[in-house]
Amino acid sequence: MTSEVQTRDIDIAAHVALLGQQARQASGLLRRSTTGQRNAALAAMALELSHHRDTLLDANARDMARGRAEGLSEALMDRLLLTPSRIDAMISGLETVASLPDPVGGIDDLRTQDNGLRIGRMRTPLGVIGIIYESRPNVTVDAAALCLKAGNAAILRGGSEAFESNCAIARCIASGLESAGLPGHAVQLIETTDRNAVGALITAREYVDVIIPRGGKSLIKRISEEASIPVIKHLEGLCHVFVDRHASLDMAFDIAFNAKCFRYGICGAMETLLVDQEIAQAFVPAMIAKFQDAGVTVRGCDRVQALAEVEPATEEDWWTEYLGPELSVRIVEDMDAAIEHINHYGSHHTDAIVSDHFGHTQRFMLEVDSSSVMVNAPTCFADGAQYGLGAEIGISTDKLHVRGPVGLEGLTTRKYIVLGDGHVRT
Amino acid sequence: MTSEVQTRDIDIAAHVALLGQQARQASGLLRRSTTGQRNAALAAMALELSHHRDTLLDANARDMARGRAEGLSEALMDRLLLTPSRIDAMISGLETVASLPDPVGGIDDLRTQDNGLRIGRMRTPLGVIGIIYESRPNVTVDAAALCLKAGNAAILRGGSEAFESNCAIARCIASGLESAGLPGHAVQLIETTDRNAVGALITAREYVDVIIPRGGKSLIKRISEEASIPVIKHLEGLCHVFVDRHASLDMAFDIAFNAKCFRYGICGAMETLLVDQEIAQAFVPAMIAKFQDAGVTVRGCDRVQALAEVEPATEEDWWTEYLGPELSVRIVEDMDAAIEHINHYGSHHTDAIVSDHFGHTQRFMLEVDSSSVMVNAPTCFADGAQYGLGAEIGISTDKLHVRGPVGLEGLTTRKYIVLGDGHVRT
Repeated sequence: MTSEVQTRDIDIAAHVALLGQQARQASGLLRRSTTGQRNAALAAMALELSHHRDTLLDANARDMARGRAEGLSEALMDRLLLTPSRIDAMISGLETVASLPDPVGGIDDLRTQDNGLRIGRMRTPLGVIGIIYESRPNVTVDAAALCLKAGNAAILRGGSEAFESNCAIARCIASGLESAGLPGHAVQLIETTDRNAVGALITAREYVDVIIPRGGKSLIKRISEEASIPVIKHLEGLCHVFVDRHASLDMAFDIAFNAKCFRYGICGAMETLLVDQEIAQAFVPAMIAKFQDAGVTVRGCDRVQALAEVEPATEEDWWTEYLGPELSVRIVEDMDAAIEHINHYGSHHTDAIVSDHFGHTQRFMLEVDSSSVMVNAPTCFADGAQYGLGAEIGISTDKLHVRGPVGLEGLTTRKYIVLGDGHVRT
Repeated sequence: MTSEVQTRDIDIAAHVALLGQQARQASGLLRRSTTGQRNAALAAMALELSHHRDTLLDANARDMARGRAEGLSEALMDRLLLTPSRIDAMISGLETVASLPDPVGGIDDLRTQDNGLRIGRMRTPLGVIGIIYESRPNVTVDAAALCLKAGNAAILRGGSEAFESNCAIARCIASGLESAGLPGHAVQLIETTDRNAVGALITAREYVDVIIPRGGKSLIKRISEEASIPVIKHLEGLCHVFVDRHASLDMAFDIAFNAKCFRYGICGAMETLLVDQEIAQAFVPAMIAKFQDAGVTVRGCDRVQALAEVEPATEEDWWTEYLGPELSVRIVEDMDAAIEHINHYGSHHTDAIVSDHFGHTQRFMLEVDSSSVMVNAPTCFADGAQYGLGAEIGISTDKLHVRGPVGLEGLTTRKYIVLGDGHVRT
């Protein structure tokens, strides 16, 4: 390592530490802010975005030109692109978050103990949240809005390919905050493309309470391995639909098809279809024909291969999140085997059973160890908006703190409050 | 590193992996167990302990003899000691946990969405919990009972000084499990004193869902730094009482004295007393005299030194958890300064205000960033039993997942359940 690089590393670490101190201070001020102030800031940000459409589109055009010159893939270029309608969507996203109920300050479970002490739990902000994300510039607005609404300061680190767009958006956010009388440091963008900034952010234990990465599997894996701060992870969605022997086959047909084909690229898309052997003959050939008609490549276990013209599924397939027009199908002995398959190969994201048998649905719900378990509904419903959360910052595949779609509640914590009248312990 | 050591490391890692596989399998079976079975196992364990009192006392006598030979401190020897009445306490602890309501399977917030989907959250076990603890053998029983009641498998790693006692207790636990028809591997003790076993346990991501260390600050710090699995931490309790200018001074007198002197060694003991300057003259001299009469060494800031004969408090004192008959006292400008002191120097464990002013108490509750915030009650009430949790496995100073005393609820997670009727997404 040359001394020049060392100097830069120290500079980056010092810069991130400064952002951290500013965020910590802003977080203290946010604890005193009212719901009205935070909503006013969200409205003011929306106004700023609306007033600076041209600036945003110009900045984005520069990112797009650089991306084109650097040969970014079509998919990445599409994520990077801002259009007037995408700016409208950011603005209406801010309005949605402003309209959600404020989670902060609510008190649950307040009960009086035998000695007269009243003890309950108050919902409060987490403090400072670090968000690390990839190409989509709209995440800058969405993440800022959700963190702020829940009373948290945010430090944002966007993808380098969206650098100019993100900086332009961040200026609108800061103006919005200040015009509502809130500290501009409540939302800070790390304004450098230096990759060492990520390393500095995910180890800044003194200043940052939680890290939320949003992006591809490799980004999230690296961050959770290297962070010394708790991470709320959204790993892959290897989702299953199990068609039980007691399923209505018509319903199973529609649910399985929808689970795969609603959109191939979402994390709630079905990747493996499991079918109880008792109804395999009646269900599998027609189901596979329907998938193949829709252009889905089907891979099957030996028993599936005996019923339809499919590619052979390998062990590797049961572990694969295709995120595309591919599907693996397996015929299983019974529900126990299905649950075992899901808990073994699945990613604990979202899994569904189609069944009219009460006992089977109950056992499936209890025993499948996933963040969402569905009965007679397709896995593609796994989404914060569908769940009534209003907005989500991701879908957690962790078990601790928050599991499944993460809305405002997941960005808060609960403290105990103890209300006495001069009690002493004897 | 000699090859002998390397071989031993590999053996230890393989051994911990085997325990992990067995725990994972047991965890799957526990998901299917009924509340009745788990309570029966707890009752059977109590019976086993009662039947094997002599075995337990013999094993403990061997640990005590070894401890004496190795020159363990008096405090450690006392923690290590089992007596008939301590065995009785373990037995009644099991009965208490059996009598608590089962958290598993409860469904909250079940709501019907516009499209008719019913979405709610079901409480389920975390899976496999690793507990690492120090000398007290009773933790073996307490931790096993709480994990099991919440439907989790547990891997226990006790202190080497209590090795024989822990092994004897673990045999009673295993017999209890099996006599209730539950897998004996639901609770496993790591039966080696090799320290490498801890390193293997806290990095066994595939098998262990969460680590809970119980012990001194250095143990917990080391484990949270080295673990690659989420850790529920109980760090120090640097607790404050703030006497507001609107306090009833009689009440403040009793609360501050109780907060320090109820028991010096508990994590909820007050370490720093903050007093509003407006009432310092009327409060501080008498209060300090009372502490000094009780044998407490008092250290004060400059302004305190002007009012009473005390040692000078240094910057270091504001950071110190004495856990003994020592106290630092500081006179502050106002409530803002008190909140700033607490959030800066405190350990975010438990802090209290004494005040009759409604607005001050509300602000203190919102703005002090601690796991428990108390109004007109002493910090020594911070305790799961006092909070009505029935039993606790520790007091979390983390913000994520669970904050404050950790009872059965903290050993569970919530999954989303989605109940449909053949819904599809369009």
